[in-house]
Amino acid sequence: MRNMEKLEFKKIFPGVWRAGVDFQYPGYNYGGLLERAGVKPFQEGFDKQAETPFPFAEAPRAKQAGGKILFMFPFGGQERLYGLGLVYERLEQTLQVRHLRCDHYGGKDNGRTHVPAPFYVSDAGYGVFIDSASVISFYMGGSVRKDAKNPPPEKNRGRDADWQSAQRSEYVEVSLDGGRADVYIFGGASMADVVSRFNLLSGGGCLPPKWGLGMWQRVNIKYSAEEVKQDAAEFAKRGVPLSVIGLEPGWQSNSYPCTHEWDAERFPDPKEFLREMSGMGVRINLWENLYVSKSAKIYEKLKPYSGTHTVWGGVAPDLCLPEARNLMMDQHRRDHVAYGVSGYKIDECDGFDSWLWPDHAEFPSGVAGVEMRQVYAALFARALDGLYRSTNRRTYGLIRAANAGMSSFPYCIYNDCYDFRQYMTGLASTGFTGALWCPEIRGVKSAEEYVRRFQIGCVSPMLMINSWAERVTPWSFPEVENIIRDVIKLRELLLPYLYTAFADYRFGGLPPFRALCMDFSGASATSQAGVLDSTDNPYALGKMAEIVDQYMAGRSLMVAPVFTGNTRRDVFLPEGEWYDFYSGEALGGGKTISIDCPLEKLPLFVRGGEKGGVIPTMVDGTVSVLCYGEKGSGSFYDDDGLTYDFESGTYYRAALSFVKKGGAVEGTVTVEHDGYRPVPFDFMPIGNGRS
Amino acid sequence: MRNMEKLEFKKIFPGVWRAGVDFQYPGYNYGGLLERAGVKPFQEGFDKQAETPFPFAEAPRAKQAGGKILFMFPFGGQERLYGLGLVYERLEQTLQVRHLRCDHYGGKDNGRTHVPAPFYVSDAGYGVFIDSASVISFYMGGSVRKDAKNPPPEKNRGRDADWQSAQRSEYVEVSLDGGRADVYIFGGASMADVVSRFNLLSGGGCLPPKWGLGMWQRVNIKYSAEEVKQDAAEFAKRGVPLSVIGLEPGWQSNSYPCTHEWDAERFPDPKEFLREMSGMGVRINLWENLYVSKSAKIYEKLKPYSGTHTVWGGVAPDLCLPEARNLMMDQHRRDHVAYGVSGYKIDECDGFDSWLWPDHAEFPSGVAGVEMRQVYAALFARALDGLYRSTNRRTYGLIRAANAGMSSFPYCIYNDCYDFRQYMTGLASTGFTGALWCPEIRGVKSAEEYVRRFQIGCVSPMLMINSWAERVTPWSFPEVENIIRDVIKLRELLLPYLYTAFADYRFGGLPPFRALCMDFSGASATSQAGVLDSTDNPYALGKMAEIVDQYMAGRSLMVAPVFTGNTRRDVFLPEGEWYDFYSGEALGGGKTISIDCPLEKLPLFVRGGEKGGVIPTMVDGTVSVLCYGEKGSGSFYDDDGLTYDFESGTYYRAALSFVKKGGAVEGTVTVEHDGYRPVPFDFMPIGNGRS
Repeated sequence: MRNMEKLEFKKIFPGVWRAGVDFQYPGYNYGGLLERAGVKPFQEGFDKQAETPFPFAEAPRAKQAGGKILFMFPFGGQERLYGLGLVYERLEQTLQVRHLRCDHYGGKDNGRTHVPAPFYVSDAGYGVFIDSASVISFYMGGSVRKDAKNPPPEKNRGRDADWQSAQRSEYVEVSLDGGRADVYIFGGASMADVVSRFNLLSGGGCLPPKWGLGMWQRVNIKYSAEEVKQDAAEFAKRGVPLSVIGLEPGWQSNSYPCTHEWDAERFPDPKEFLREMSGMGVRINLWENLYVSKSAKIYEKLKPYSGTHTVWGGVAPDLCLPEARNLMMDQHRRDHVAYGVSGYKIDECDGFDSWLWPDHAEFPSGVAGVEMRQVYAALFARALDGLYRSTNRRTYGLIRAANAGMSSFPYCIYNDCYDFRQYMTGLASTGFTGALWCPEIRGVKSAEEYVRRFQIGCVSPMLMINSWAERVTPWSFPEVENIIRDVIKLRELLLPYLYTAFADYRFGGLPPFRALCMDFSGASATSQAGVLDSTDNPYALGKMAEIVDQYMAGRSLMVAPVFTGNTRRDVFLPEGEWYDFYSGEALGGGKTISIDCPLEKLPLFVRGGEKGGVIPTMVDGTVSVLCYGEKGSGSFYDDDGLTYDFESGTYYRAALSFVKKGGAVEGTVTVEHDGYRPVPFDFMPIGNGRS
Repeated sequence: MRNMEKLEFKKIFPGVWRAGVDFQYPGYNYGGLLERAGVKPFQEGFDKQAETPFPFAEAPRAKQAGGKILFMFPFGGQERLYGLGLVYERLEQTLQVRHLRCDHYGGKDNGRTHVPAPFYVSDAGYGVFIDSASVISFYMGGSVRKDAKNPPPEKNRGRDADWQSAQRSEYVEVSLDGGRADVYIFGGASMADVVSRFNLLSGGGCLPPKWGLGMWQRVNIKYSAEEVKQDAAEFAKRGVPLSVIGLEPGWQSNSYPCTHEWDAERFPDPKEFLREMSGMGVRINLWENLYVSKSAKIYEKLKPYSGTHTVWGGVAPDLCLPEARNLMMDQHRRDHVAYGVSGYKIDECDGFDSWLWPDHAEFPSGVAGVEMRQVYAALFARALDGLYRSTNRRTYGLIRAANAGMSSFPYCIYNDCYDFRQYMTGLASTGFTGALWCPEIRGVKSAEEYVRRFQIGCVSPMLMINSWAERVTPWSFPEVENIIRDVIKLRELLLPYLYTAFADYRFGGLPPFRALCMDFSGASATSQAGVLDSTDNPYALGKMAEIVDQYMAGRSLMVAPVFTGNTRRDVFLPEGEWYDFYSGEALGGGKTISIDCPLEKLPLFVRGGEKGGVIPTMVDGTVSVLCYGEKGSGSFYDDDGLTYDFESGTYYRAALSFVKKGGAVEGTVTVEHDGYRPVPFDFMPIGNGRS
């Protein structure tokens, strides 16, 4: 391949093109993210995708300079760019510079993040994915070249009021180390369409087991089997639904570094413990990190297949080697999964710089430390995926890092961030990146905050209390225990809708939780003029007014969470028809409304119109289809909720539509796939006098 | 050179050893920082340095892995590590990980900093400098190897109360890109001793002209010549001393990008303007950044000698090429220096990622963009150094970036940081890194804060108001105008002492402003146990109780600035004898005292004893030697304060000592170098009834 050659893209799926570069670089070459994750494109999903035109008029180019590859992608007009992994400060990435490196969030969006996915999306309707495990630098349209065809006009800061520190260039430029990388271009009618194709390339989204969408409680780090059972009994006694209990580090005989073996004192008979919990209808999830203690039984065997550096004194398994993976998975199968452990919380795989191996660490597979940190989470999730598939039981859990290519692995991202606005930005940003965010509930300061945090969890990938450090339970604040119980029950009510949203993720790649701007370009950020301040804003940078406290859940539900201290809030209703979820009141669209926010109510809005207005819910064992507006449509998906049998067709899918006539509703069910038992539907008009 | 070979260090100066590695790497190899700065070791200073033993019992080693060099330096016991450039959050760098890259401070100490100097110092009495312009990763003793001889014991987070997230390893590990680098090891009896040798290697410290230590005022970005003259006249009218006025971007015909040419409307006759200002005793400093506008006269000639990418539309001169440097310097000489411009404020050379060229930018010299960002400040300071030397006039100014090797260039670092504690940490940290910090005064909110900010400036490398954005003058708060005037006069009083401190920097490498712990190991940080919090401190990290609001100025003065809202403060007095600067009261040592902090007084303390207690001051044109305690000693340096003649011996230096007998003081002057006119000394006892 020669320098600055135009990349030759080949169409590999409808709306997806690939080009590989190989500059024959003699130094270290990085692996690909899809290769490390071991995932394959989901052909069945692509079969339903429409053809789209190649999005660039001018061909993207590549060049080698020293030990780096440079890519140039055309950029222009007023397009807005999103993505580049998990972010907390701003969704829009236009004109930003990011060096994407897997690391714990350090308080600033600078590229060091738990999810450094090298994928961006333009609201002009395309996406770019650089498939390399290198630390990749993205210059998002602010680097103007000397030989630019249409350079922005020069301004004089000493005279021109419209001088700005940022300028728009003609290219997004991307550089990375090594000589090899694959580039994927995605087309699409909307950003959601583009992201769906990106997820299908990674194998489609994950479909959690149904129990994964229930109530989760993580217990204190020092809990014993007896204490866990007592907590579960207390849930039952109080009538609070409970699906999963997560054990924190103390369940292991040693942790930080880990043995992954049961603590004989706290959990003397793990098999019996799991059996009893199962009898109470509660699944067990185990915390772990991957650094193996000298006192672990597999230590001596594992040691030769680990990196040069320890983490908290434990060896770091070289997960690129089958020997290391097999030692870990055999132990996990024997000691956990065989007893019924439902999944894991995989902590500290995010390259927290202060204690991870250094970038120059060496692994026996030959994979460099700096690459291993980018893909460690993927390698382990992949190994666990194999383990659970071999039992034909789905898993669902938590993981503190991800990267591109992991959308099909059933894990939610979390970290220590807890600020409301950052939390919501994080949740919205995962939708651009093939990841899910768990808005865990912990360390709250008041009953009001407690309810508000719970409400965010209610319509999210995972509703979970994390009580590992402080003691937090659904009855922590007695004065709101009933409200909390209702929030948990609202989630149960919404299960059919949310499960269908996940099926759309699994089969079609559509993220179940999305930033508002992904569906509605009118909800993009607006730039507000900056105010000069010699200390706080010396370049008079404008601020982004982004809507991050509203997001889409599934195709038709919009969530507008309220945070502590607020009794009213503004809600932006995009163009179209919108309804209040509870009352069915028609609210119109294309405007901002102000609403009352009583504590007990999570503001929820239903997108109406011909392709909306339908929310399947579960009421007393039957599917109640809530119908908003005069007519609408939606869909319903169901399967056993437990196994992978759906992958071979054992599932049910139906299109649902309705028309209201007078006070009555006339529903139509069109079965699209009948591989699983059908359910009776009850179409229920909401609004028009009913609520 | 073979892998993991022990480095062969050769002694090159007393207490300084060098080893070069060259792994014959075929990819991009970085230049050295000393080479880019073009500096030579200051032999005369080393002639006075004592021999010290090589500090490591086990030889440091080097290895190549892929395209990286790895260095391993022994680390052990309870040693504390400092340095690694400009920092704001904590001075001590033990167990930290830093990837040193020139960039604007982003709110976190993570290695992206204005001064990414790859030099660290241990309180065990040694220093390590990696001379490479690569982005260098430092793992400061927290990366434990699997094959460690004495690994830290495993702990169980689920059971052991003393589990800690950080562990001490046996090595500091350092890695960088490319195949070539020089390593320097420095010995010394103290950290100040080690740092002095590091500075001597870079040519010694800078000696500012005397006028540079006077009062500076930077004026508004849009000021005209007339407005500047009016401001200067107002200073004179109010009896407020003024030494330098700094012009901000609007003096140029275009700025951001820059022409470096005078704005014909605001400054129609720059030569006459400079002449008039000179007549008022005021020097002119010019703001600039280095990105050249299309409307600059040199643009067309410069363009071929610039990088591929523009910055604010201006071309970035390839300062590694003599053609680019000469074009810039010829213009600067002709249009500025010939008229008497005294120096520059060199802005935005710090690689602010959002608008600098990308790392993959190419420069015609073949130097990569990622290297150029690390050394751009050094290259320009070097060029200006040549220009001013050719006129035999010293300069003094401001620069927004530096790197190792720049201690001999007369510039102060600044940035937008303004938080009191961060400001003081920044000031203290520059002492570890061959840089100076300007605690500029701007945008203050109250008269009280104004006084407190001024007091920090009073005993600092540069006392400067920065009024570029907001209007700030010494009389901004009429109620404290007299206090401000007294603060400026206190700085004038201290000039002989501060100038001598700079001479010690110039000739001996001793930083004029130093963290307390550099001189007194008893003033090191103490670690406070962390409190577990699931959100704010999930690893229960301890906090560092570092003393950053006290620092040493010169050999004998300790400054303890007070910040807004405080009327009392604690002051730690290290072991020894300490005196109140104003009253001479003996305060003892080895303890913490609590003092009153009336607004008008900057707390200053004099270190007494046989090698202290002497503060030469300037009172009505004669040198008044303030004498604290029963006996003491110090020194005095003088020269023309203006030219480089001191470098060929045209200076005066004397040792001063005194003994008190009864109420009288008996002073002794021992002339050490008599190349410049002697001054009369007046030894004045402070305390013992006088003050």
